[in-house]
Amino acid sequence: MAINNPLILVVNDDGINAPGIRALIEVAKGLGEVVVVAPDKAQSGMGHAITINDTLQVDKVNIEGTIAYSCSGTPVDCVKLAINKLLHKKPQLIVSGINHGSNSSINVVYSGTMSAALEGSLEGIPSIGFSLLDHSIEADFSAAQIIAKQVITSVLNNNQEKSLCLNVNIPKLNTKLIAGIKVCRQAKGNWQEEYDERVNPMGTIYYWLTGKFVIEDDGEDTDEWALAKGYVSIVPVQPDVTDYKIKNDLKYLEL
Amino acid sequence: MAINNPLILVVNDDGINAPGIRALIEVAKGLGEVVVVAPDKAQSGMGHAITINDTLQVDKVNIEGTIAYSCSGTPVDCVKLAINKLLHKKPQLIVSGINHGSNSSINVVYSGTMSAALEGSLEGIPSIGFSLLDHSIEADFSAAQIIAKQVITSVLNNNQEKSLCLNVNIPKLNTKLIAGIKVCRQAKGNWQEEYDERVNPMGTIYYWLTGKFVIEDDGEDTDEWALAKGYVSIVPVQPDVTDYKIKNDLKYLEL
Repeated sequence: MAINNPLILVVNDDGINAPGIRALIEVAKGLGEVVVVAPDKAQSGMGHAITINDTLQVDKVNIEGTIAYSCSGTPVDCVKLAINKLLHKKPQLIVSGINHGSNSSINVVYSGTMSAALEGSLEGIPSIGFSLLDHSIEADFSAAQIIAKQVITSVLNNNQEKSLCLNVNIPKLNTKLIAGIKVCRQAKGNWQEEYDERVNPMGTIYYWLTGKFVIEDDGEDTDEWALAKGYVSIVPVQPDVTDYKIKNDLKYLEL
Repeated sequence: MAINNPLILVVNDDGINAPGIRALIEVAKGLGEVVVVAPDKAQSGMGHAITINDTLQVDKVNIEGTIAYSCSGTPVDCVKLAINKLLHKKPQLIVSGINHGSNSSINVVYSGTMSAALEGSLEGIPSIGFSLLDHSIEADFSAAQIIAKQVITSVLNNNQEKSLCLNVNIPKLNTKLIAGIKVCRQAKGNWQEEYDERVNPMGTIYYWLTGKFVIEDDGEDTDEWALAKGYVSIVPVQPDVTDYKIKNDLKYLEL
Protein backbone atom coordinates (compact mmCIF):
# COMPACT_ATOMS: atom_id res chain seq x y z
CA MET A 1 0.00 0.00 0.00
CA ALA A 2 1.46 3.34 -0.98
CA ILE A 3 2.12 5.87 1.79
CA ASN A 4 0.57 9.26 1.03
CA ASN A 5 3.21 12.00 0.80
CA PRO A 6 5.83 10.22 2.96
CA LEU A 7 8.42 12.17 4.93
CA ILE A 8 11.80 11.29 3.39
CA LEU A 9 15.10 12.15 5.07
CA VAL A 10 17.99 12.63 2.64
CA VAL A 11 21.57 12.24 3.91
CA ASN A 12 24.97 11.52 2.37
CA ASP A 13 28.69 11.42 3.09
CA ASP A 14 30.05 13.59 0.27
CA GLY A 15 28.61 16.70 1.91
CA ILE A 16 25.61 18.94 1.34
CA ASN A 17 27.07 20.54 -1.78
CA ALA A 18 27.90 17.31 -3.64
CA PRO A 19 26.12 16.84 -6.99
CA GLY A 20 25.10 13.33 -5.89
CA ILE A 21 22.89 14.48 -3.01
CA ARG A 22 21.36 17.18 -5.17
CA ALA A 23 20.41 14.48 -7.71
CA LEU A 24 18.85 12.36 -4.92
CA ILE A 25 16.96 15.34 -3.48
CA GLU A 26 15.37 15.91 -6.91
CA VAL A 27 14.14 12.31 -6.94
CA ALA A 28 12.87 12.44 -3.34
CA LYS A 29 10.97 15.71 -3.94
CA GLY A 30 8.88 13.92 -6.55
CA LEU A 31 7.90 11.22 -4.06
CA GLY A 32 7.23 12.95 -0.74
CA GLU A 33 8.04 15.68 1.75
CA VAL A 34 11.82 16.10 1.94
CA VAL A 35 14.13 17.00 4.81
CA VAL A 36 17.88 17.06 4.14
CA VAL A 37 20.55 16.73 6.86
CA ALA A 38 24.03 16.33 5.39
CA PRO A 39 27.62 16.96 6.46
CA ASP A 40 28.93 20.47 5.89
CA LYS A 41 32.05 18.98 4.24
CA ALA A 42 33.06 15.75 2.49
CA GLN A 43 33.05 12.79 4.90
CA SER A 44 33.96 9.91 2.61
CA GLY A 45 35.44 6.84 4.28
CA MET A 46 34.07 7.84 7.68
CA GLY A 47 32.45 4.44 8.22
CA HIS A 48 30.20 4.33 11.25
CA ALA A 49 32.08 7.13 13.04
CA ILE A 50 30.13 9.23 15.54
CA THR A 51 31.07 12.41 17.39
CA ILE A 52 31.26 11.66 21.11
CA ASN A 53 34.02 13.92 22.42
CA ASP A 54 33.00 17.09 20.62
CA THR A 55 29.96 19.24 19.96
CA LEU A 56 27.75 19.29 16.87
CA GLN A 57 26.37 22.32 15.09
CA VAL A 58 23.73 22.59 12.38
CA ASP A 59 22.94 25.40 9.95
CA LYS A 60 19.87 25.90 7.79
CA VAL A 61 20.60 25.65 4.08
CA ASN A 62 18.43 26.91 1.25
CA ILE A 63 17.51 24.04 -1.07
CA GLU A 64 14.28 24.71 -2.93
CA GLY A 65 11.28 22.57 -1.98
CA THR A 66 12.97 21.07 1.08
CA ILE A 67 13.86 21.80 4.68
CA ALA A 68 17.64 21.41 4.68
CA TYR A 69 20.44 21.54 7.22
CA SER A 70 24.19 21.14 7.08
CA CYS A 71 25.79 19.46 10.10
CA SER A 72 29.34 19.67 11.43
CA GLY A 73 29.42 15.92 12.17
CA THR A 74 29.71 12.59 10.39
CA PRO A 75 27.05 10.93 8.19
CA VAL A 76 25.88 8.83 11.18
CA ASP A 77 25.71 11.97 13.34
CA CYS A 78 23.46 13.53 10.69
CA VAL A 79 21.00 10.63 10.93
CA LYS A 80 21.00 10.55 14.74
CA LEU A 81 20.59 14.31 15.04
CA ALA A 82 17.88 14.41 12.36
CA ILE A 83 15.77 11.72 13.99
CA ASN A 84 16.29 12.76 17.59
CA LYS A 85 16.30 16.54 17.29
CA LEU A 86 15.62 18.13 13.92
CA LEU A 87 12.60 16.29 12.49
CA HIS A 88 9.09 17.06 13.66
CA LYS A 89 8.02 13.43 13.07
CA LYS A 90 9.58 10.07 12.27
CA PRO A 91 10.39 9.77 8.57
CA GLN A 92 8.93 6.89 6.54
CA LEU A 93 12.21 6.46 4.67
CA ILE A 94 15.85 7.52 4.74
CA VAL A 95 17.82 7.72 1.51
CA SER A 96 21.60 8.21 1.52
CA GLY A 97 23.74 9.32 -1.41
CA ILE A 98 23.91 9.30 -4.29
CA ASN A 99 27.52 8.45 -3.45
CA HIS A 100 30.25 9.42 -5.87
CA GLY A 101 31.87 5.97 -6.20
CA SER A 102 31.14 2.32 -5.43
CA ASN A 103 30.08 0.95 -2.06
CA SER A 104 29.89 -2.67 -3.20
CA SER A 105 31.66 -5.60 -1.52
CA ILE A 106 33.91 -4.72 1.45
CA ASN A 107 33.52 -0.99 0.73
CA VAL A 108 30.32 -1.16 2.77
CA VAL A 109 32.34 -1.21 6.02
CA TYR A 110 34.28 1.97 5.15
CA SER A 111 31.33 3.81 3.67
CA GLY A 112 29.76 6.80 5.36
CA THR A 113 26.88 6.56 2.89
CA MET A 114 26.03 3.03 3.94
CA SER A 115 26.75 3.60 7.63
CA ALA A 116 24.19 6.42 7.56
CA ALA A 117 21.68 4.05 5.99
CA LEU A 118 22.46 1.32 8.53
CA GLU A 119 22.03 3.81 11.36
CA GLY A 120 18.61 4.70 9.99
CA SER A 121 17.55 1.06 9.96
CA LEU A 122 18.90 0.64 13.52
CA GLU A 123 16.52 3.45 14.50
CA GLY A 124 13.63 1.54 12.95
CA ILE A 125 13.36 3.45 9.68
CA PRO A 126 13.72 1.69 6.31
CA SER A 127 16.86 3.09 4.70
CA ILE A 128 18.49 2.90 1.30
CA GLY A 129 22.02 3.88 0.31
CA PHE A 130 22.63 4.68 -3.34
CA SER A 131 26.07 4.73 -4.97
CA LEU A 132 27.11 5.39 -8.57
CA LEU A 133 30.27 3.72 -9.85
CA ASP A 134 31.74 7.04 -10.92
CA HIS A 135 33.93 9.15 -8.63
CA SER A 136 33.91 12.16 -10.92
CA ILE A 137 32.49 15.44 -9.67
CA GLU A 138 30.99 15.70 -13.17
CA ALA A 139 29.40 12.24 -13.05
CA ASP A 140 26.12 11.83 -14.94
CA PHE A 141 23.47 10.91 -12.35
CA SER A 142 20.54 10.68 -14.80
CA ALA A 143 20.43 6.86 -14.94
CA ALA A 144 21.02 6.67 -11.17
CA GLN A 145 18.06 8.99 -10.64
CA ILE A 146 15.76 6.72 -12.65
CA ILE A 147 16.96 3.70 -10.65
CA ALA A 148 16.62 5.55 -7.34
CA LYS A 149 13.04 6.55 -8.18
CA GLN A 150 12.22 2.95 -9.12
CA VAL A 151 13.75 1.44 -5.95
CA ILE A 152 12.33 4.05 -3.56
CA THR A 153 8.84 3.68 -5.02
CA SER A 154 9.05 -0.09 -4.82
CA VAL A 155 10.19 0.02 -1.17
CA LEU A 156 7.50 2.55 -0.20
CA ASN A 157 4.84 0.36 -1.82
CA ASN A 158 6.02 -3.09 -0.74
CA ASN A 159 8.32 -3.06 2.27
CA GLN A 160 7.05 -4.20 5.65
CA GLU A 161 10.43 -4.23 7.45
CA LYS A 162 11.26 -1.22 9.61
CA SER A 163 14.82 -2.51 9.85
CA LEU A 164 15.27 -2.73 6.07
CA CYS A 165 18.64 -1.45 4.89
CA LEU A 166 19.60 -1.67 1.23
CA ASN A 167 22.97 -1.12 -0.40
CA VAL A 168 22.20 -0.10 -3.99
CA ASN A 169 25.11 0.24 -6.43
CA ILE A 170 24.55 1.53 -9.94
CA PRO A 171 26.92 0.86 -12.84
CA LYS A 172 28.36 3.76 -14.82
CA LEU A 173 26.16 3.19 -17.85
CA ASN A 174 23.55 5.00 -19.89
CA THR A 175 20.01 4.13 -18.78
CA LYS A 176 19.37 2.04 -21.88
CA LEU A 177 22.47 -0.09 -21.25
CA ILE A 178 21.60 -1.04 -17.65
CA ALA A 179 20.75 -4.76 -17.77
CA GLY A 180 18.31 -4.72 -14.85
CA ILE A 181 18.27 -4.91 -11.02
CA LYS A 182 19.58 -7.92 -9.06
CA VAL A 183 19.26 -8.66 -5.33
CA CYS A 184 22.70 -9.96 -4.30
CA ARG A 185 24.98 -10.89 -1.46
CA GLN A 186 28.09 -8.86 -0.58
CA ALA A 187 31.09 -10.15 -2.58
CA LYS A 188 34.21 -11.12 -0.69
CA GLY A 189 36.89 -8.62 -1.62
CA ASN A 190 39.57 -6.47 -0.14
CA TRP A 191 41.80 -3.46 -0.63
CA GLN A 192 45.50 -3.91 -1.21
CA GLU A 193 46.91 -0.69 0.15
CA GLU A 194 50.01 1.13 -0.76
CA TYR A 195 51.04 4.32 0.94
CA ASP A 196 52.59 7.04 -1.16
CA GLU A 197 55.46 8.36 1.01
CA ARG A 198 56.42 12.02 0.55
CA VAL A 199 58.52 14.63 2.31
CA ASN A 200 56.99 18.01 3.18
CA PRO A 201 58.85 21.35 2.85
CA MET A 202 59.90 21.07 6.54
CA GLY A 203 61.59 17.71 5.87
CA THR A 204 58.94 15.58 7.59
CA ILE A 205 57.67 12.35 6.03
CA TYR A 206 53.94 12.05 5.36
CA TYR A 207 51.71 9.48 3.66
CA TRP A 208 48.78 9.36 1.25
CA LEU A 209 46.61 6.25 1.18
CA THR A 210 46.38 4.59 -2.22
CA GLY A 211 45.48 1.05 -3.17
CA LYS A 212 43.55 -1.22 -5.46
CA PHE A 213 40.44 -3.28 -4.87
CA VAL A 214 40.75 -7.04 -5.33
CA ILE A 215 37.69 -9.30 -5.70
CA GLU A 216 38.17 -12.64 -3.92
CA ASP A 217 34.87 -14.16 -4.94
CA ASP A 218 33.70 -15.73 -8.21
CA GLY A 219 30.11 -16.29 -7.11
CA GLU A 220 27.37 -15.32 -9.58
CA ASP A 221 25.09 -14.12 -6.79
CA THR A 222 27.30 -11.22 -5.65
CA ASP A 223 27.10 -7.47 -6.07
CA GLU A 224 30.42 -7.44 -7.93
CA TRP A 225 29.18 -10.03 -10.42
CA ALA A 226 25.95 -8.14 -11.04
CA LEU A 227 27.75 -4.81 -11.53
CA ALA A 228 30.27 -6.37 -13.93
CA LYS A 229 27.34 -7.66 -16.00
CA GLY A 230 25.73 -4.23 -16.15
CA TYR A 231 23.08 -4.79 -13.47
CA VAL A 232 22.22 -2.56 -10.55
CA SER A 233 23.09 -4.54 -7.38
CA ILE A 234 20.96 -4.45 -4.24
CA VAL A 235 22.38 -6.05 -1.09
CA PRO A 236 20.19 -6.12 2.04
CA VAL A 237 22.35 -5.18 5.02
CA GLN A 238 22.03 -5.97 8.75
CA PRO A 239 24.23 -5.16 11.75
CA ASP A 240 25.07 -8.58 13.26
CA VAL A 241 28.73 -9.31 12.43
CA THR A 242 28.97 -12.53 14.49
CA ASP A 243 30.91 -15.19 12.58
CA TYR A 244 28.44 -18.05 13.12
CA LYS A 245 30.45 -20.37 10.84
CA ILE A 246 33.43 -20.56 13.17
CA LYS A 247 31.66 -19.93 16.50
CA ASN A 248 31.55 -23.61 17.46
CA ASP A 249 35.22 -24.14 16.57
CA LEU A 250 36.28 -21.70 19.29
CA LYS A 251 35.42 -23.82 22.31
CA TYR A 252 39.13 -23.98 23.07
CA LEU A 253 38.86 -20.36 24.24
CA GLU A 254 36.26 -21.09 26.91
CA LEU A 255 37.02 -21.38 30.60
CA MET B 1 51.81 -25.36 17.86
CA ALA B 2 53.21 -22.33 19.64
CA ILE B 3 54.88 -19.67 17.49
CA ASN B 4 58.36 -18.78 18.77
CA ASN B 5 58.61 -15.11 19.76
CA PRO B 6 55.73 -13.90 17.55
CA LEU B 7 55.59 -10.36 16.22
CA ILE B 8 52.57 -8.72 17.86
CA LEU B 9 51.13 -5.40 16.66
CA VAL B 10 49.35 -3.43 19.39
CA VAL B 11 46.78 -0.78 18.39
CA ASN B 12 43.84 0.98 20.05
CA ASP B 13 41.35 3.80 19.65
CA ASP B 14 41.80 5.67 22.94
CA GLY B 15 45.21 6.94 21.81
CA ILE B 16 48.81 6.02 22.54
CA ASN B 17 48.76 7.54 26.03
CA ALA B 18 45.66 5.72 27.30
CA PRO B 19 46.20 3.45 30.34
CA GLY B 20 44.38 0.63 28.48
CA ILE B 21 46.96 0.32 25.69
CA ARG B 22 49.80 0.50 28.20
CA ALA B 23 48.21 -2.45 30.07
CA LEU B 24 47.93 -4.42 26.81
CA ILE B 25 51.51 -3.62 25.81
CA GLU B 26 52.71 -5.08 29.13
CA VAL B 27 50.86 -8.33 28.36
CA ALA B 28 52.12 -8.49 24.77
CA LYS B 29 55.74 -7.90 25.80
CA GLY B 30 55.61 -11.12 27.81
CA LEU B 31 54.47 -13.10 24.78
CA GLY B 32 56.49 -11.84 21.80
CA GLU B 33 58.16 -8.99 19.96
CA VAL B 34 55.97 -5.88 20.20
CA VAL B 35 55.34 -3.04 17.77
CA VAL B 36 52.82 -0.35 18.76
CA VAL B 37 51.03 1.93 16.27
CA ALA B 38 48.29 3.96 17.92
CA PRO B 39 46.44 7.24 17.33
CA ASP B 40 48.13 10.36 18.68
CA LYS B 41 44.79 11.38 20.26
CA ALA B 42 41.57 9.71 21.45
CA GLN B 43 39.61 8.25 18.52
CA SER B 44 36.67 6.62 20.27
CA GLY B 45 33.57 6.06 18.19
CA MET B 46 35.51 6.34 14.94
CA GLY B 47 34.12 3.05 13.62
CA HIS B 48 35.81 1.90 10.43
CA ALA B 49 36.78 5.44 9.39
CA ILE B 50 39.85 5.85 7.18
CA THR B 51 41.71 8.96 6.05
CA ILE B 52 41.36 9.34 2.31
CA ASN B 53 41.30 13.07 1.69
CA ASP B 54 44.18 14.03 3.97
CA THR B 55 47.74 13.04 4.77
CA LEU B 56 48.97 10.84 7.61
CA GLN B 57 52.00 11.43 9.80
CA VAL B 58 53.73 9.13 12.28
CA ASP B 59 56.12 9.89 15.12
CA LYS B 60 58.37 7.53 17.06
CA VAL B 61 57.36 7.21 20.70
CA ASN B 62 59.51 5.86 23.52
CA ILE B 63 57.80 2.87 25.16
CA GLU B 64 60.30 0.55 26.82
CA GLY B 65 60.77 -2.86 25.23
CA THR B 66 58.80 -1.98 22.09
CA ILE B 67 59.06 -0.16 18.81
CA ALA B 68 56.26 2.39 19.05
CA TYR B 69 54.70 5.03 16.83
CA SER B 70 51.89 7.52 17.22
CA CYS B 71 49.84 8.20 14.09
CA SER B 72 47.74 11.21 13.13
CA GLY B 73 44.96 8.99 11.71
CA THR B 74 42.16 6.71 12.84
CA PRO B 75 42.52 3.25 14.43
CA VAL B 76 42.00 1.61 11.01
CA ASP B 77 44.62 3.93 9.48
CA CYS B 78 47.05 2.75 12.18
CA VAL B 79 46.58 -0.89 11.16
CA LYS B 80 46.85 -0.19 7.44
CA LEU B 81 49.93 1.98 7.82
CA ALA B 82 51.58 -0.47 10.22
CA ILE B 83 51.13 -3.45 7.93
CA ASN B 84 51.87 -1.70 4.66
CA LYS B 85 54.62 0.70 5.66
CA LEU B 86 55.98 0.56 9.22
CA LEU B 87 56.50 -3.14 10.00
CA HIS B 88 59.51 -5.01 8.68
CA LYS B 89 57.50 -8.26 8.47
CA LYS B 90 53.90 -9.42 8.75
CA PRO B 91 52.81 -9.74 12.40
CA GLN B 92 51.48 -13.07 13.68
CA LEU B 93 48.83 -11.28 15.70
CA ILE B 94 47.17 -7.90 16.15
CA VAL B 95 45.74 -6.93 19.53
CA SER B 96 43.58 -3.83 19.94
CA GLY B 97 42.71 -2.09 23.21
CA ILE B 98 42.33 -2.53 26.04
CA ASN B 99 39.37 -0.26 25.37
CA HIS B 100 38.03 1.92 28.15
CA GLY B 101 34.38 0.83 27.95
CA SER B 102 32.24 -1.91 26.43
CA ASN B 103 32.23 -2.95 22.78
CA SER B 104 29.59 -5.64 23.17
CA SER B 105 26.38 -5.90 21.13
CA ILE B 106 25.81 -3.08 18.60
CA ASN B 107 28.76 -1.09 19.98
CA VAL B 108 30.93 -3.18 17.67
CA VAL B 109 29.83 -1.09 14.66
CA TYR B 110 30.80 2.24 16.28
CA SER B 111 34.01 0.95 17.84
CA GLY B 112 37.42 2.05 16.64
CA THR B 113 38.96 -0.73 18.76
CA MET B 114 36.98 -3.43 16.96
CA SER B 115 37.27 -1.80 13.53
CA ALA B 116 41.06 -1.89 13.93
CA ALA B 117 40.83 -5.59 14.79
CA LEU B 118 38.52 -6.29 11.85
CA GLU B 119 40.89 -4.43 9.53
CA GLY B 120 43.72 -6.67 10.74
CA SER B 121 41.74 -9.79 9.96
CA LEU B 122 40.83 -8.38 6.52
CA GLU B 123 44.58 -8.13 5.90
CA GLY B 124 44.98 -11.81 6.81
CA ILE B 125 46.27 -11.41 10.34
CA PRO B 126 44.43 -12.93 13.33
CA SER B 127 43.22 -10.01 15.43
CA ILE B 128 41.71 -9.60 18.87
CA GLY B 129 40.00 -6.55 20.33
CA PHE B 130 39.86 -6.28 24.13
CA SER B 131 37.45 -4.02 26.01
CA LEU B 132 36.94 -3.53 29.73
CA LEU B 133 33.47 -2.51 30.94
CA ASP B 134 34.86 0.51 32.76
CA HIS B 135 35.15 3.94 31.13
CA SER B 136 37.20 5.44 33.94
CA ILE B 137 40.68 6.75 33.21
CA GLU B 138 41.58 5.12 36.54
CA ALA B 139 40.09 1.72 35.63
CA ASP B 140 41.80 -1.33 37.12
CA PHE B 141 43.15 -3.38 34.19
CA SER B 142 44.70 -6.17 36.28
CA ALA B 143 41.93 -8.75 35.67
CA ALA B 144 41.73 -7.70 32.02
CA GLN B 145 45.48 -8.29 31.68
CA ILE B 146 45.15 -11.85 32.99
CA ILE B 147 42.28 -12.52 30.56
CA ALA B 148 44.16 -10.94 27.66
CA LYS B 149 47.22 -13.10 28.35
CA GLN B 150 45.03 -16.22 28.51
CA VAL B 151 43.17 -15.44 25.26
CA ILE B 152 46.26 -14.34 23.30
CA THR B 153 48.20 -17.45 24.35
CA SER B 154 45.28 -19.68 23.44
CA VAL B 155 44.91 -18.05 20.00
CA LEU B 156 48.66 -18.21 19.30
CA ASN B 157 48.68 -21.91 20.23
CA ASN B 158 45.43 -23.06 18.62
CA ASN B 159 44.19 -20.76 15.90
CA GLN B 160 44.49 -21.78 12.24
CA GLU B 161 42.38 -18.95 10.79
CA LYS B 162 44.21 -15.97 9.31
CA SER B 163 40.90 -14.14 9.14
CA LEU B 164 40.12 -14.69 12.83
CA CYS B 165 38.71 -11.59 14.54
CA LEU B 166 37.59 -11.75 18.15
CA ASN B 167 35.59 -9.21 20.14
CA VAL B 168 36.56 -9.82 23.78
CA ASN B 169 34.65 -7.92 26.48
CA ILE B 170 35.69 -8.17 30.11
CA PRO B 171 33.35 -7.41 33.03
CA LYS B 172 34.37 -4.86 35.65
CA LEU B 173 35.14 -7.45 38.32
CA ASN B 174 38.06 -8.60 40.41
CA THR B 175 39.88 -11.55 38.86
CA LYS B 176 38.45 -14.00 41.41
CA LEU B 177 34.88 -12.96 40.66
CA ILE B 178 35.08 -13.52 36.90
CA ALA B 179 32.89 -16.55 36.21
CA GLY B 180 34.79 -17.79 33.15
CA ILE B 181 35.00 -17.19 29.39
CA LYS B 182 32.08 -17.77 26.99
CA VAL B 183 32.08 -17.77 23.19
CA CYS B 184 28.91 -15.87 22.22
CA ARG B 185 26.94 -14.23 19.47
CA GLN B 186 26.43 -10.45 19.26
CA ALA B 187 23.31 -9.46 21.23
CA LYS B 188 20.67 -7.40 19.46
CA GLY B 189 20.66 -3.99 21.09
CA ASN B 190 20.57 -0.33 20.30
CA TRP B 191 21.26 3.17 21.56
CA GLN B 192 18.39 5.50 22.35
CA GLU B 193 19.95 8.86 21.76
CA GLU B 194 19.15 12.16 23.25
CA TYR B 195 20.98 15.32 22.31
CA ASP B 196 21.77 17.81 25.03
CA GLU B 197 21.02 21.19 23.40
CA ARG B 198 23.03 24.20 24.61
CA VAL B 199 23.70 27.77 23.55
CA ASN B 200 27.29 28.98 23.22
CA PRO B 201 28.50 32.45 24.33
CA MET B 202 27.92 33.73 20.78
CA GLY B 203 24.25 32.69 20.94
CA THR B 204 24.57 29.69 18.63
CA ILE B 205 22.92 26.34 19.44
CA TYR B 206 25.12 23.29 19.71
CA TYR B 207 24.58 19.66 20.70
CA TRP B 208 26.25 16.95 22.78
CA LEU B 209 25.39 13.33 22.07
CA THR B 210 24.01 11.43 25.06
CA GLY B 211 21.90 8.30 25.25
CA LYS B 212 21.32 4.97 26.86
CA PHE B 213 21.94 1.45 25.61
CA VAL B 214 18.91 -0.84 25.36
CA ILE B 215 19.26 -4.62 25.01
CA GLU B 216 16.63 -6.06 22.66
CA ASP B 217 17.61 -9.70 23.08
CA ASP B 218 16.93 -12.21 25.87
CA GLY B 219 19.01 -15.03 24.38
CA GLU B 220 21.34 -16.88 26.75
CA ASP B 221 24.00 -17.27 24.06
CA THR B 222 24.78 -13.55 23.69
CA ASP B 223 27.65 -11.35 24.82
CA GLU B 224 25.29 -9.23 26.93
CA TRP B 225 23.98 -12.30 28.74
CA ALA B 226 27.50 -13.59 29.45
CA LEU B 227 28.71 -10.22 30.72
CA ALA B 228 25.68 -9.81 32.97
CA LYS B 229 26.49 -13.22 34.49
CA GLY B 230 30.10 -12.23 35.17
CA TYR B 231 31.68 -14.03 32.21
CA VAL B 232 34.16 -12.66 29.71
CA SER B 233 32.39 -12.67 26.31
CA ILE B 234 34.15 -13.57 23.08
CA VAL B 235 32.29 -12.96 19.81
CA PRO B 236 33.99 -14.02 16.55
CA VAL B 237 33.50 -11.23 14.00
CA GLN B 238 33.45 -11.27 10.18
CA PRO B 239 32.83 -8.53 7.58
CA ASP B 240 29.88 -9.84 5.53
CA VAL B 241 26.82 -7.77 6.51
CA THR B 242 24.45 -9.27 3.92
CA ASP B 243 21.02 -9.92 5.44
CA TYR B 244 20.62 -13.49 4.14
CA LYS B 245 17.35 -13.95 6.07
CA ILE B 246 15.41 -11.40 4.02
CA LYS B 247 17.35 -11.64 0.74
CA ASN B 248 14.80 -13.92 -0.92
CA ASP B 249 11.89 -11.73 0.17
CA LEU B 250 13.22 -8.84 -1.92
CA LYS B 251 12.50 -10.27 -5.36
CA TYR B 252 9.95 -7.46 -5.82
CA LEU B 253 12.91 -5.12 -6.27
CA GLU B 254 14.34 -6.99 -9.25
CA LEU B 255 13.94 -5.92 -12.85
